[in-house]
Amino acid sequence: MHAARDVRIETVPDAGIKEATDALIRVTRACICGSDLWPYNGQDFRGYPLPMGHEAIGVVEAVGSEVRTLKKGDVVVMPFAFSDGTCAFCHEGLHTSCRQGGFFGSLDVGGAQAEALRVPQADGTLFALPVGEDDALMPSLLTLSDVMGTGHHAAVVAKAGPGRTAAVIGDGAVGLCGVIAAKRLGAERIILLGRHADRIALAREFGATDVVSERGDEAVERVMDITGGMGVHSVLECVGTDQAVATAVGLARPGGAVGRVGVPHYDTIPSSLPAFFKNVTVGGGPAPVRAYINDLLPDVMEGRIEPGRVFDRAVDLSGVPEGYRAMNDRDAIKVMVRP
Amino acid sequence: MHAARDVRIETVPDAGIKEATDALIRVTRACICGSDLWPYNGQDFRGYPLPMGHEAIGVVEAVGSEVRTLKKGDVVVMPFAFSDGTCAFCHEGLHTSCRQGGFFGSLDVGGAQAEALRVPQADGTLFALPVGEDDALMPSLLTLSDVMGTGHHAAVVAKAGPGRTAAVIGDGAVGLCGVIAAKRLGAERIILLGRHADRIALAREFGATDVVSERGDEAVERVMDITGGMGVHSVLECVGTDQAVATAVGLARPGGAVGRVGVPHYDTIPSSLPAFFKNVTVGGGPAPVRAYINDLLPDVMEGRIEPGRVFDRAVDLSGVPEGYRAMNDRDAIKVMVRP
Repeated sequence: MHAARDVRIETVPDAGIKEATDALIRVTRACICGSDLWPYNGQDFRGYPLPMGHEAIGVVEAVGSEVRTLKKGDVVVMPFAFSDGTCAFCHEGLHTSCRQGGFFGSLDVGGAQAEALRVPQADGTLFALPVGEDDALMPSLLTLSDVMGTGHHAAVVAKAGPGRTAAVIGDGAVGLCGVIAAKRLGAERIILLGRHADRIALAREFGATDVVSERGDEAVERVMDITGGMGVHSVLECVGTDQAVATAVGLARPGGAVGRVGVPHYDTIPSSLPAFFKNVTVGGGPAPVRAYINDLLPDVMEGRIEPGRVFDRAVDLSGVPEGYRAMNDRDAIKVMVRP
Repeated sequence: MHAARDVRIETVPDAGIKEATDALIRVTRACICGSDLWPYNGQDFRGYPLPMGHEAIGVVEAVGSEVRTLKKGDVVVMPFAFSDGTCAFCHEGLHTSCRQGGFFGSLDVGGAQAEALRVPQADGTLFALPVGEDDALMPSLLTLSDVMGTGHHAAVVAKAGPGRTAAVIGDGAVGLCGVIAAKRLGAERIILLGRHADRIALAREFGATDVVSERGDEAVERVMDITGGMGVHSVLECVGTDQAVATAVGLARPGGAVGRVGVPHYDTIPSSLPAFFKNVTVGGGPAPVRAYINDLLPDVMEGRIEPGRVFDRAVDLSGVPEGYRAMNDRDAIKVMVRP
């Protein structure tokens, strides 16, 4: 991406092993992410040009001399952040704070909307899947690289669970996966805040019990009506604007929790005083999706959750610019890339 | 309090039973609170005049017709908020969000820096103590009405515990009680951010292992030095300024938690982006001290904790204005009032 709205497919030097801990993967599936739309719209804190893409499934083509757990031919899912799997934070399950870690989609590491990609810290980063590269479950497995794990993180931080109500702010792929996650964790009532008919329909199939299409104070009023004036225990904030966070705090029941996973495009968390007097907790951040694959994979393999249904369009590399346009115009929920 | 710095002792109509659920207490001990210094300095969101005082121990003089668990002569501790003890939030241990609750120190309810006080929702609010009104443990028992419970709340929300490091921002009475609470919950290393020699000395006796007297970025640097560049797991924010909260987020280790109990004198929580990328949780609010009395009372009764040591001055009612001055000038840590 060379500038806002300027997405080009370019031939670059082949990716290859640089460090002994690297793997080289041939990308078989990648995605366009809602967070890719921030630089697409010129609203990003990094500069251009940006190699794009941080979600992938691929086949290992080569490994560095120190890679122990992977071999050529392995089908792997790649979390959006790389991590060594051995530091204190990785041991605590917070792989996105790995002391040797980082994020894909940078000039240094490259992006996954490509034919091939160098994966640092391959042993810690990649998760070998028990399927072939064209398995029917590929769309759902691909969501384990980001959106399903991110929705799950929002639900975990928001303490979704049995006997509790949840609200999910945002009907993008992460919000929809947040609905799946809240339901999977046992939330009894799940209110989606969204306004696109196709996404709302999918959210209902995923387990949303109520839909609120208002925004801001009006949305808070509607949720208060639905919850008998109490608010919800768990708020999954899957947008990343200041309005969304203010709404999240407004929706929360006293003692409730907000899990924010939308990359913040705001400097401060608003509604500090209401959050204080309600004893509302605001947490979240980049999801440690690497840690969550262990939890989520069995449910995907056995068909109990189908997060791959968020993909409603697939493109090859040449179709990536059109994919950005479609997601940005809300013509597509989430676009799969098949290089 | 009629205006900033304008504290007067006035004769007002006698307090009495208004509602069938009220009790009338003769105040035997009250306090001046750090939070009382906000209106004393003209920095408060309420108007003047303000009846002052929200912490007390007293003797029940009369009860309304529906009061079941208290009788004349009971020695009781009064949490800074009243609560019915029966609503959903009280059952969840969040008495400060009681649906029939409220806060002392208002024109409606009156203040505890007084000879007597009407206590709404007496059954839910007051906690009968197993001691006489002049027991030697009175100072420590009195802290259960606010500062010890509030420091404990900060520690609970910040998830202080075994194997974890804690930082306490603020060396006022709440911060000092926060040190006691972090130690009581098992924190291994407790770093106090404070700059007053007398308070630091007391904090060390309470369990602080390190003291940082810098502020802002310099304080963050010092704590990073102490913790090997990691930051602390638990931050107890006991001040309530935007700088203190920004520092709190800065001190937190990735995945850490900030418990904020200083009444916020800021509109937004700063450092949103660092908090996000570190997956730091910010929580807290008015402490449900009524719920915590059950936990803390045995430790006070058996002398395992001595939070009453935060009182370094006692005054009668006529000495209250001088008590405010002394606390505001940091000549006193916390002032006890004996009407």
